[in-house]
This record gives sequence, structure tokens and C-alpha cells, in this order.
Amino acid sequence: MRIGDALMILTFIGTAGSGKTTITSEFGKYLEERGHKVSYVNLDTGVKNLPYNPDVDVRERITVEELMKEGYGPNGAIVESYDRLMMHFEDYLRRILELSEKSDYVLIDTPGQMETFLFHEFGVRLMENLHEPLVIYLFDPKILKKSRDYCFVRFFSIMIELRLGSTTVPALNKIDLVEKIEKYKVYLEDVDYLTSRLKLDPSMQGFLAYKLCSFLPEILPPVRVLYLSAKTREGFEDLETLTYEHYCTCGDLT
Amino acid sequence: MRIGDALMILTFIGTAGSGKTTITSEFGKYLEERGHKVSYVNLDTGVKNLPYNPDVDVRERITVEELMKEGYGPNGAIVESYDRLMMHFEDYLRRILELSEKSDYVLIDTPGQMETFLFHEFGVRLMENLHEPLVIYLFDPKILKKSRDYCFVRFFSIMIELRLGSTTVPALNKIDLVEKIEKYKVYLEDVDYLTSRLKLDPSMQGFLAYKLCSFLPEILPPVRVLYLSAKTREGFEDLETLTYEHYCTCGDLT
Repeated sequence: MRIGDALMILTFIGTAGSGKTTITSEFGKYLEERGHKVSYVNLDTGVKNLPYNPDVDVRERITVEELMKEGYGPNGAIVESYDRLMMHFEDYLRRILELSEKSDYVLIDTPGQMETFLFHEFGVRLMENLHEPLVIYLFDPKILKKSRDYCFVRFFSIMIELRLGSTTVPALNKIDLVEKIEKYKVYLEDVDYLTSRLKLDPSMQGFLAYKLCSFLPEILPPVRVLYLSAKTREGFEDLETLTYEHYCTCGDLT
Repeated sequence: MRIGDALMILTFIGTAGSGKTTITSEFGKYLEERGHKVSYVNLDTGVKNLPYNPDVDVRERITVEELMKEGYGPNGAIVESYDRLMMHFEDYLRRILELSEKSDYVLIDTPGQMETFLFHEFGVRLMENLHEPLVIYLFDPKILKKSRDYCFVRFFSIMIELRLGSTTVPALNKIDLVEKIEKYKVYLEDVDYLTSRLKLDPSMQGFLAYKLCSFLPEILPPVRVLYLSAKTREGFEDLETLTYEHYCTCGDLT
């Protein structure tokens, strides 16, 4: 199902280890099996092996390992790689937009460290130049331990939206590793419930989280949360539907 | 000037390249020149060279480069290094607390990528175990281009506070590179002014920033913002005063 030049571009963002590359690969396969033409973009200069075959790959120009051989430490090399890629920014933007014209879906896999994308001009400008960009913010169940951690991920998702100007959908990833998914769902979706739990946390952190979450309904309309597993493909249909609805409702359908 | 066992521990957090290591070194020298006993903690497994002599250094156990020789990519190696350090968490906590007993100041230099500290158990647990921790969130003037970027850094500072349970002070670093510091100051400190500017931004991002900043006064009491330069030492006296006041007002003075 091709939606004109609807530019169905889906960008996965998350910390190192949150599963961006695996989801990009598996969700791509899933879409291909359903008859869609899928293109893949790798923006991670540090990744060693990719489970998918990228149509655009920033490693063709520079990799973190090459820069480390020049004498950079790992963190310096990561930043330097995107400084150097900036010279070719227009080329990458053009190629990504071209891909979107000849594919049903373009899946963008972002740098290993999320902040490389959020704080570097490369990521910020790329997203500014996409039409109605859609970001899936992947997070790992293991960072959710206390009530306030749920508030943290909800607001972190808003920080991404603020920084990149993208519609940003929080997605709990690796749910095959989770025992009681219902507990996660109520904390992530029912803001009133979360706020009532935070009210019981007597720490300064708890109070801050309580105030932040009290404002949540006024800051953003209710947000759909996704629950994904690359292993079992749970949530893939929801992700497909959400992408379709996003670009059909907001995207340029001309 | 020794303040009992006031545990004056100062933690510098920021993205790669924001100047954590240089500030740690230069502010340490500044304090030493004023007669204080200063200890240094390096928590960055990826840094190659340090301009200060660390009293505790996580690289004694593991470095990113060693893990990359084992076959990890740079991002995987960064995460793996902290996974391995977790086995020695109690040892590091004990040694940091011991340092604080025999020093006037302990300066903690954190991982190159900020999210390694914010999302990994190592950073979160360390801060939970410090008494009234004080974090200086360093950011670079070059990420501040539009009005909404100021809203972003103010909220990012709150995200750090929420995650780490630390009093978190935003600090514009490298101000020797800035021409009109007054412009930065009014955007960072005068929330009413910032909000009025955001109201003029017709984008979705601008509207989100406007709503977030409208809530800012209700979320946190007015926060001091620091303006630092390791090169000219501007702001060092303010940082010293702020640290002293923080631990004298809130810390354990017994």
C-alpha cells in the first residue's frame, strides 16, 4: 500500500543497547513480508555489524574506529565523526528524501548514543528538514524501577519532541523480557494513577516527579505508548498502524 | 576552610565535549591555590588523557579501548564497561566517601556521554548514595540557537535532577567563546521574558516550549545559572560560593 509521496519516514531513537538496530531490522523485515518496499538508513558511525542492508550508511565516509586510530578517544571520536559528516549534510538529506520517494517506508537507525543525535547539529538539522517527522523513542524495561522513572521516560520523550520538532512516541522495548506487562501499562498510560503513586513518594525527587506529572495532561494530549519486541514481533502491527495514521492524518498526501 | 565532614562533593555532567574534564581540572587547581584540599574522581572509562591526577579512576579496572580489542563496538564497549564496574560498585562508593572525609572538596568527572551516567545503574546508584548531591550540568553555547533551545536546557537540567535526585545547577560553559553574554543571561534567567519570546514562535515545537516554560516557575523555585570558563576562570568564585552555600544550608554539618 503506497501512500502517494507520503514520505513515511520512521526514526528510532534510544540509548545504546535500547534495541534501535534490531527493531529497525526486524520491523523492516516484517514490512517487507507484507509487500512493502522498505529502505534503511544507518546514521551510526560506531556500529560494527548491521543485521540489515543499509541504502544509506554514514560509515561509508567515516567510522568511530578509524578516528580512534587517528588518536581520538571513543567519545571524542563519536563527536568528531558527526562534525565531519556535517560537510556532507545536504548530500545525506537529499539521499534520504530520494529514498522516501521510491519506498513505502524509510527506517532511520540513529547513533548509538542518543545524545549524539539530540545535541549535535547533524541530528537536529536532519529532523528539521523532514516533513512531519515521526520518532519512536525506545527505552528498556530495566530503567523502570521506581514510580518516578516512569515520569522520567514520559518527560524524556517530550524533551526529544521539543529538541527535534518531531512527533515522538515512547515505546517500551524488549517486552519479551517483561513478566507483568499490565503493571508497566498502567504506569505509562494512566497519568492519574501515576500521579497518585508519586504523591506517596516523600523524597524531593518524588515531589518533583509529582509536580511534573501533574502538568503532563496540560502539556501534551494523551499519547499512545507502544510495547515492542523484535523477538516476538509484538507491537509491530500497532507500530505500522500508528505510522500510517500519522502520515495519513498529518502528512502531505499530494 | 574545612566544613566539618560536610562532604563537599561536586559532580560535573554534560555531553561529550561540554568541558567536564577541563572544568574539573581547572576548578580543582583554583581551589588548591586557595588552600583547599581537593580530591579528583574520574568515572569516564573512555577518556584517554586527564589533565588532573585522579585519586579514584575507573580506568584502573576497565577501559573502552580494552573492550573494543575484545571485539565490542564503541557504544557497546561504553555500556559494557559500566556493566562490569557494577561488580565493584560498593568499592567505588566507599572510596569516594572516604575521599570526602579527608578532603575539602571532591570533584567528580563523569562519563563522556551524559546518558551513560543518567541511564546506567552505576550513575543512578552512586548519586542515590551521596548525601545531598550537587550536580553542575554543563552545556555548550553552540547548542543555543533558538528561543526553544533555552527551554530545552532548562528542562534537561530538571530531567537530571529527577533522575539523579541531585540539586542540579545549569551552567553555560566556555563563555570565553561568547560575544554577548547578556543575551544568554536574559534567556536563561528571566523565565517571563523567555516565555514571551516563545509565544512568538508559531511552530509546534515553539508551542510545546511555551507550555513547558509557562510551568517552569511552578515546578522549581528560581534556579541560579552559572556562567563558566576554564580558560579565564570566570564564574569560579560563583561556583565556589554556590557549593559552600549548598552544603552549609542542606548538608550534614555534624
